[in-house]
Amino acid sequence: MPDFHIQPLNHELATALQLEIDSKTKPLGALGDLEALARQIGLIQQTLTPQLRQPHVLVFAADHGIATEGVSKYPQEVTYQMVLNFLNGGAAINVFCRQQGMELKVVDAGVKGSFADFPAVVNQKIAEGTRNFLHEPAMSLAQCEQALAAGAKLARELAATGCNVLGFGEMGIANTSAAALLMHRFTGLPLPDCLGRGTGLDDEQLTHKATILTAAAQQHAAVTAPLEVLATFGGFEIVQMAGAMLAAAELGLVLLIDGFIATAALLAAAALHPAVREYCVFCHQSEETGHRRMLTYLAARPLLNLNLRLGEGTGCALAYPLLVSAVSFLNEMASFESAGVSQSEVPVPA
Amino acid sequence: MPDFHIQPLNHELATALQLEIDSKTKPLGALGDLEALARQIGLIQQTLTPQLRQPHVLVFAADHGIATEGVSKYPQEVTYQMVLNFLNGGAAINVFCRQQGMELKVVDAGVKGSFADFPAVVNQKIAEGTRNFLHEPAMSLAQCEQALAAGAKLARELAATGCNVLGFGEMGIANTSAAALLMHRFTGLPLPDCLGRGTGLDDEQLTHKATILTAAAQQHAAVTAPLEVLATFGGFEIVQMAGAMLAAAELGLVLLIDGFIATAALLAAAALHPAVREYCVFCHQSEETGHRRMLTYLAARPLLNLNLRLGEGTGCALAYPLLVSAVSFLNEMASFESAGVSQSEVPVPA
Repeated sequence: MPDFHIQPLNHELATALQLEIDSKTKPLGALGDLEALARQIGLIQQTLTPQLRQPHVLVFAADHGIATEGVSKYPQEVTYQMVLNFLNGGAAINVFCRQQGMELKVVDAGVKGSFADFPAVVNQKIAEGTRNFLHEPAMSLAQCEQALAAGAKLARELAATGCNVLGFGEMGIANTSAAALLMHRFTGLPLPDCLGRGTGLDDEQLTHKATILTAAAQQHAAVTAPLEVLATFGGFEIVQMAGAMLAAAELGLVLLIDGFIATAALLAAAALHPAVREYCVFCHQSEETGHRRMLTYLAARPLLNLNLRLGEGTGCALAYPLLVSAVSFLNEMASFESAGVSQSEVPVPA
Repeated sequence: MPDFHIQPLNHELATALQLEIDSKTKPLGALGDLEALARQIGLIQQTLTPQLRQPHVLVFAADHGIATEGVSKYPQEVTYQMVLNFLNGGAAINVFCRQQGMELKVVDAGVKGSFADFPAVVNQKIAEGTRNFLHEPAMSLAQCEQALAAGAKLARELAATGCNVLGFGEMGIANTSAAALLMHRFTGLPLPDCLGRGTGLDDEQLTHKATILTAAAQQHAAVTAPLEVLATFGGFEIVQMAGAMLAAAELGLVLLIDGFIATAALLAAAALHPAVREYCVFCHQSEETGHRRMLTYLAARPLLNLNLRLGEGTGCALAYPLLVSAVSFLNEMASFESAGVSQSEVPVPA
C-alpha cells in the first residue's frame, strides 16, 4: 500500500487572513464564497499572499468490465475514441483548458487499445480495462496499489515542476456505475440514492442499470475495507485519480474536484486519509443524481451549478477563473486605509 | 423621451444552432446551461459562429437624496470615495476586469463632488445627487430623460468602436432603497419582499429602512407611468444604466446584468421596452433579499450564485469567462463526425 502523509490544515493563519480580507474596500463579507475560497487557498499555502502556478487538468481514462452488462448508453469503444479526441484537441476539456491557460494531461490508466502513436499520452496503463465486477473484483489488490502509486507519481512529478493547482477529470464508459457503488459503500447511502442516468439513460435503461448494480453490490457484500472496496468496484482511472489526489494533498497543492466520478475518487481517497478533504475545492455540482448527495456528505458547497454532466474535468476548468479571482482580490484590492474610504457607520436616526 | 427600437430576437436560427450544438463530441445536453447560453448569444448575433469582442463593464455612480434618512450602513461620502478607488484601480471590479481582459469605464452619473482632476472618469453628471424621494420625486422628468439619453449615448459610442458585450454595474450609497421601490412598482410585489440589508444593515437598521420606504411608497402612491416611476424613485446611475441597456439591446449587443440594482434598472428598461430582456445574460444571484424574486419575475436563471452583495458589476466580470466558454465550445469543439466518435447507442440487454 503506497504511503501518504497528509497534514491537516494549520489554521493558525486564519485570523490574519480574515483581517486582510476584511481590510479590503468592500462591505464585510460582500465577496461571499470568494472570501471562503481565498481563506482556504491561503491556509493551504500558509500565506497571506497565495499564488496559483502552472494549473493542470489531469484526465484519467480507463475502461470498465461492467460495460459489457449494458449499463451505459454508449459503447465501450467511445472511451478510446474520446481519448483520441482529447489528444487531437477537439473535446470540451481541450477548449476550456486553452481558454483558461491550464495545461491538460491525458492519462491512459487502463483504456482498451493502444496509443503507441501518440507520444502526448501519459502511459500509465494498468491493464486493458477492469474485469466485470458483477462476477469478480474489478482489479486485484496489487493492481489497485499499483494504480494508486502511478497516480501519485504523476502528481509528484507535476508538483516538482512548480505546479501548485491540480484539476481532476476522467473518461471511461460505464464509470458512473463504478462510482455509484463506491459512493454507496463509502457514504453508507442506499444504492438507489447513488444511481443516475450517466450520459443519458432512459427509464428502461436506468432500471436495467439498477438491477445490475444491485446484484453486484450483493455479490460483494462481504467487502468492507476501503482498499478492497476500491479494488472491487473501482476503475483504473478512479484509483489513479485517488492516488494523485492523495499525493497532491501531501505536497500542499490545491485540488480541483470535478463531478460525480472525480468526487467518488475523492471519497475513496478520504476513506484512506480524511485530511485530503481540506485541500479540495469543489468546482461544480453535476446534474448526475447522487452528486448533490456526495457533496452534502462531504459538507461541500460547489462553486458552480450549471447542470453539466460531462466529466472530463470540465467543471474544474470552468471554475478555475473563480480561484484566480479569489487570489487576485486578496493580493490586489486596496484597503480602506490605503484608498481613504470611510469605514464609519451611520447611526440609525431616533 | 429618447426613442429606442429593439427588435425581438429572431428565432429562425434556433434549429440550426441546436443541430450545431448537438453535433459536438459530448452527450446530448451535457454542457447544460452553457448550451442555453451559446444558443442565446448565437441568436443575439444571428450567427452559428458568435464572437465576443472588446467586453466592457460600465460602472455608473451617483448619490441619492434618500441617504439622508439613514437607510444605508455607510455615509454618503463613500460613493465619492469608492469612485476614486475605481479610478485608482483598487476596487474589486478593477481586479476582476484586469483578470478577464475587460475594459472598465467609470461613469459619474450624479455623484456629489468633482472629479475634474481625473480625466479617466466619464463625466455624465446630471446633478450632485438626487432629491429625497421621501418628500419629492428624486428627479424631474426632464432629468430622467436626460439621464436615459446620456446612458444610451455611451453605449452607442462603445458599440461604434466594435464592443459587442457590455456589463452593467453601479455604485451609490442608499441605492438599494431606490432599487427596492422600483422593484415594488415594476413587479407589483409587496414592498417587504423587495427590501434587504444592502451593505449589511442589522435588524434595527432594516426596520428603520422599511419604515422610511413604506412612507415614500405612500407619498408617491399616485405615480404609475413607467417613466414617472423611474424619475420618482430612481437614481441617476440607475436611469443611465437603463438607457445604456436599451441602446445596447437596440444595437444587438450582449448585455451582462449584475445584481440587485442593475436588475432594477433592467426592470425599468423592460417596462419601457420589454424586448430588452432577450439580450440579457443574468450573471449572478445576489445575496440581497429580493434579487432572487426579481430573477424569478424575469424568468431568469443566473449563471453564478456565490453569495456576493457588492455590486460594481463584479458579477458580470466573474461570469464573463462562462460566456467565453459557451462561445468557444460552439466554435472549437470537434463534431462526432470529424472526431470519429461513435453516436450509436447500446441496446438494453433482454
